Amino acid sequence: METVSTNKAHGGVQGVYRHGSKETGTDMTFSVFVPPHEAGAKLPVVWYLSGLTCTHANVTEKGEYRRICAELGLIFVAPDTSPRGEGVPDDAAGAYDFGLGAGFYVDATEQPFARNYRMWSYVTEELPTLVAAEFPADMDRQSIMGHSMGGHGALTIGLTFPQRYKAVSAFSPIVAPTQVPWGEKALPGYLGDDKSAWRKHDAVALIEDGARVDALLVDQGTADNFLEGQLKPELLDKACQDAGIALTLNMREGYDHSYYFISSFMEDQLRWHKARLG
Amino acid sequence: METVSTNKAHGGVQGVYRHGSKETGTDMTFSVFVPPHEAGAKLPVVWYLSGLTCTHANVTEKGEYRRICAELGLIFVAPDTSPRGEGVPDDAAGAYDFGLGAGFYVDATEQPFARNYRMWSYVTEELPTLVAAEFPADMDRQSIMGHSMGGHGALTIGLTFPQRYKAVSAFSPIVAPTQVPWGEKALPGYLGDDKSAWRKHDAVALIEDGARVDALLVDQGTADNFLEGQLKPELLDKACQDAGIALTLNMREGYDHSYYFISSFMEDQLRWHKARLG
Repeated sequence: METVSTNKAHGGVQGVYRHGSKETGTDMTFSVFVPPHEAGAKLPVVWYLSGLTCTHANVTEKGEYRRICAELGLIFVAPDTSPRGEGVPDDAAGAYDFGLGAGFYVDATEQPFARNYRMWSYVTEELPTLVAAEFPADMDRQSIMGHSMGGHGALTIGLTFPQRYKAVSAFSPIVAPTQVPWGEKALPGYLGDDKSAWRKHDAVALIEDGARVDALLVDQGTADNFLEGQLKPELLDKACQDAGIALTLNMREGYDHSYYFISSFMEDQLRWHKARLG
Repeated sequence: METVSTNKAHGGVQGVYRHGSKETGTDMTFSVFVPPHEAGAKLPVVWYLSGLTCTHANVTEKGEYRRICAELGLIFVAPDTSPRGEGVPDDAAGAYDFGLGAGFYVDATEQPFARNYRMWSYVTEELPTLVAAEFPADMDRQSIMGHSMGGHGALTIGLTFPQRYKAVSAFSPIVAPTQVPWGEKALPGYLGDDKSAWRKHDAVALIEDGARVDALLVDQGTADNFLEGQLKPELLDKACQDAGIALTLNMREGYDHSYYFISSFMEDQLRWHKARLG
């Protein structure tokens, strides 16, 4: 692991790091904030998965999480959203919603994407192993959150590993990609036409198929341009009601899809995580 | 005035606006955060002047001021750092520290800069008039802060108009541009070789020449690469001691020149402003 940069912030250290990933076959860049802590302490880890077109940098610069992570003693990890680099296949037309910056947190099975687009295994296996080795992380206390496509990632990963992630939340998530245009493009592109493979990457379908967590937290802006066409939180609401999952769905009046929204409610979500991380 | 964008954030509205400036002869872009407030209320205004290479966007995205401005009821205005656009002369070699992005908050008298580089009058006269007309601003309660070159601007403007700006503070300011390379390049470039003109744009010289404010607040990182060569807060410290100005100079251990530093102490500075704005 190579250190790209470190900056002191809110008493802790905001770092950006790079490593050669076996999963993606590329160099991957990610950021980690380590709050001030006593020597030898092991701290809980919050994973933040970013949305379409983003890298680690968006939330690192605009997320306003450091003050509260410093107060609560939380490590905050922000991975990239896809493999990148020479030889990594992209959307044929260069679209923003498939290929580079749009990994959708799946292990692709379709060519030419299967070699590099392994963001599921990267985020759930390879990067946690690296974080455990390199940072003062208590891997028995992990939680996960994300935004938009990253909210999709957080919900599907959290529902798949309910013992590992003690809290699962999202900002404006894609809750049912099998039912909306972003997912109807990405899932067959990465996973092929077998729709049973898609359901493991759809939070609503996972719940319908029996996945359970105690609670979920979702913040969603009412002025979000993608609300009706792509996000559809009402589908998650119904699935959670049917399954008996305690979903807190906060519809935030007048807020949009941007980091101005995310940063406004980051503190709320982090305090909710901290209560569950102990 | 044209609205470029508005986003709800922390209960208020973060806007970006553009207008044709008579002072600079160009379109100028700036940002204004208006916190939540009661209808008809008039709110104090904090001016934030940015540093070399920056636009309004840097602090708007990375400054982490909205939460605390929302709590304290402060309007936060961030102008650009220079005129921009076709026909605006730049540094002949395209350097980062003169010309575009480096207006140094002076009214240039030298050609070819005199027509457009009128940031002193723009920031102290034209833009305040526009802000007073377009926003719920109480112009009897203004304060000013800035970073690096913008800290220089905040100190020199605050020292020149002590009645107008009720609080004056800076992050890592250039306190004595007549004595450091950045200023030794910019001041003759904009103002010519008459050093008496320079002294009005040098905080230490202004104090030596009799300018007074009750108090100043400066935060400065000890790991700032520019500390010894360009910033020299000890010169401000001595000038304030000699003049009986209550300078609070916080040397922040391990912090650098970046927005990771600024955002860490933005709350402290804004609370200090609020106490003086009433």
